Amino acid sequence: MYDFAPVFKQPTGSPIRELSRYLNQPGMISFAGGVPASDLFDVQGFKRASEIAFENPVACLQYGATEGMPALKEQILRFVEEDDIRRDDSEVIVTTGSQQGFDLLLRAFVSSGDVVYVEERTYPATLQALRLQQASVTGVAVDSDGLDTVALKLLLESDTLKAKPKLLYVVPSFSNPSGLTLSLERRIELLELAVKHQFVIVEDDPYHGLRFDGEPIPSLLSLSGRVEGARDWVVHLGSLSKISAPGLRVGWTIGPADIVRRCVIAKQTADLCSSTWMQAVAAEYLKSGALRPHLKKIADEYGKKCDVLCDLLKQEFSDGIVFDRPMGGMFLWARLRSGSDTSALLSKAIANDVVYVPGRVFFADQPDISSLRLSYAAPGEVLIREGVRRLRRAFEGSL
Amino acid sequence: MYDFAPVFKQPTGSPIRELSRYLNQPGMISFAGGVPASDLFDVQGFKRASEIAFENPVACLQYGATEGMPALKEQILRFVEEDDIRRDDSEVIVTTGSQQGFDLLLRAFVSSGDVVYVEERTYPATLQALRLQQASVTGVAVDSDGLDTVALKLLLESDTLKAKPKLLYVVPSFSNPSGLTLSLERRIELLELAVKHQFVIVEDDPYHGLRFDGEPIPSLLSLSGRVEGARDWVVHLGSLSKISAPGLRVGWTIGPADIVRRCVIAKQTADLCSSTWMQAVAAEYLKSGALRPHLKKIADEYGKKCDVLCDLLKQEFSDGIVFDRPMGGMFLWARLRSGSDTSALLSKAIANDVVYVPGRVFFADQPDISSLRLSYAAPGEVLIREGVRRLRRAFEGSL
Repeated sequence: MYDFAPVFKQPTGSPIRELSRYLNQPGMISFAGGVPASDLFDVQGFKRASEIAFENPVACLQYGATEGMPALKEQILRFVEEDDIRRDDSEVIVTTGSQQGFDLLLRAFVSSGDVVYVEERTYPATLQALRLQQASVTGVAVDSDGLDTVALKLLLESDTLKAKPKLLYVVPSFSNPSGLTLSLERRIELLELAVKHQFVIVEDDPYHGLRFDGEPIPSLLSLSGRVEGARDWVVHLGSLSKISAPGLRVGWTIGPADIVRRCVIAKQTADLCSSTWMQAVAAEYLKSGALRPHLKKIADEYGKKCDVLCDLLKQEFSDGIVFDRPMGGMFLWARLRSGSDTSALLSKAIANDVVYVPGRVFFADQPDISSLRLSYAAPGEVLIREGVRRLRRAFEGSL
Repeated sequence: MYDFAPVFKQPTGSPIRELSRYLNQPGMISFAGGVPASDLFDVQGFKRASEIAFENPVACLQYGATEGMPALKEQILRFVEEDDIRRDDSEVIVTTGSQQGFDLLLRAFVSSGDVVYVEERTYPATLQALRLQQASVTGVAVDSDGLDTVALKLLLESDTLKAKPKLLYVVPSFSNPSGLTLSLERRIELLELAVKHQFVIVEDDPYHGLRFDGEPIPSLLSLSGRVEGARDWVVHLGSLSKISAPGLRVGWTIGPADIVRRCVIAKQTADLCSSTWMQAVAAEYLKSGALRPHLKKIADEYGKKCDVLCDLLKQEFSDGIVFDRPMGGMFLWARLRSGSDTSALLSKAIANDVVYVPGRVFFADQPDISSLRLSYAAPGEVLIREGVRRLRRAFEGSL
């Protein structure tokens, strides 16, 4: 009946959000969602921040600058300074979650048919956004050290038939869905390739602060100062959602002023400005200094949960399930050695009151049908143990 | 240096936001902004709503459904029911301000080159959004009764060379910038034309509750029940921004479920969900019943300010300035009878410490260069008086 735009004639929604109807079933144990643990929210810290912010009610209730509230931008720049990142006010924009940061970049850069590179397994909302923008998406190989820069180099140098990528989207630390982290050496190589081939790296880095094991590795944004010319080619997406609380919808994009300025113009018609009230609360919360210590607490808890999950997977499945142990973040990526299709097995899992995300939804091209993503962030340790036992029952006969 | 998308190579920002650097100059009197009066915010009402909402901190801090928090959707549907609008849950989506509502509709409907009709003078962010979407924009004539439906009919019937419009964007009540209201008769005609020619009416209705004079006229959404088939062709954008407080960034889109479903899918990649915290506060505020009485207070104040402005314009300019007196809303649209260019006069106004928006930024096609928009919502009565006197000094010799 309606003459929708071509990509909206038969649109398919987020495959993960489609699973959400199972999540609230009584007794269901979910490894599916990408949501942080509700019981670890710093409720008292936000309550205080909110009280202080509302002492200036007009700033909370009135419109604000599209690029973000100056007090919040200052706190964001101070927060990232601890990762050795020094940028000025014109290089940061506050966004309605980092999801909007990516959306604004797509508008500024990508027209129908433009090439965008992603990790071969990546965040489904990124794939969906690229599909709706009619981008031509190429998946780059990934191994245990993250994005395979040798494969990327070959692709960039050999791929004479295709246009060069406008953007390369990467989650370098504790990636969604793989849980993997790009090594320091590869980060430098990636930055060098971006300078040489002149493409913009979109570093989506929401999990950076959630390391619970191993040595810290600086973000691509931080490292861009060490590779000549690289500062011009890195745009960094940050967010309070995973390190603190998603309900504020406070994210930020840091990058070259020329790019940020265009994101601001795109945001004028996207939503005018992010909630000033939430920006004021976020600014007060960051200013209070509560985030870093609280973040350590969250990371420690996630580390314990990850241990429980990994140990029990080994115990229950022996070597029927293969995975790399994450060093941080919220996700574990696993494969059934038998090659069984995890999409087909999902209904069995749901019948056993446990749910996960089948791996196929994360792939840009050829999916590995025997893979799955397990999030250990939200369920407690007892539920994680019981959930793995249910998974074993569901997968019985398919291992 | 960067290979931006064509529309972002040399982008121009919002012309009104460009004026903002003058607004904070000490002593400046502004008729320019489209912002509500800060001193009329219901600070105590929001403080209470916020305290109640945060009694369930997890709902405020965690992710929520993309289509909006059920409790807020329920309150929105209850709020519009007072305007005789009955819709169900699948016909409403919560948006990050109604600006996002329009953005989601553009994504769902408009591809490069698609035709969109607007009033010949319209909201600049709408024009900018259409430009960035590469829509083909046609301005429809407007007179004292709002959109000229005879002109529209002629355009729809004669315009055989051009494709029919996908959308017609209209602000029917106390329009921005004209302050005019579409008559009841024309509303019915517009609905009939939409059914006959099968285009979607986007009713942007943020000022509806701000009537201070004359008899209420139902919204197009409300009237769509009276014209056979019209319910399928009206999408209504509502918002707390002008009737309550913009800082929450809580808006809503009400329309046919088929359209709303696509807006939800577009929103998944735009910002995942609007701030759940702000949605919870908005739900509590609407539930408290404080909005309707407070809204009456705001409308009364705006009415008084409008009177002061109109009276003083008559007194200071006699018939050098022509305008229609608004019956509600925040804006007065005026013309210099002399035909002088208000863009050229703006620097003189700024030198006299008063600022307005030159009319040309509101036009889709041929601008009337002697027009200007004056907002009386934000300044107090004393400042309005002084502001008009300054305008007279600035326009001296050009009248």
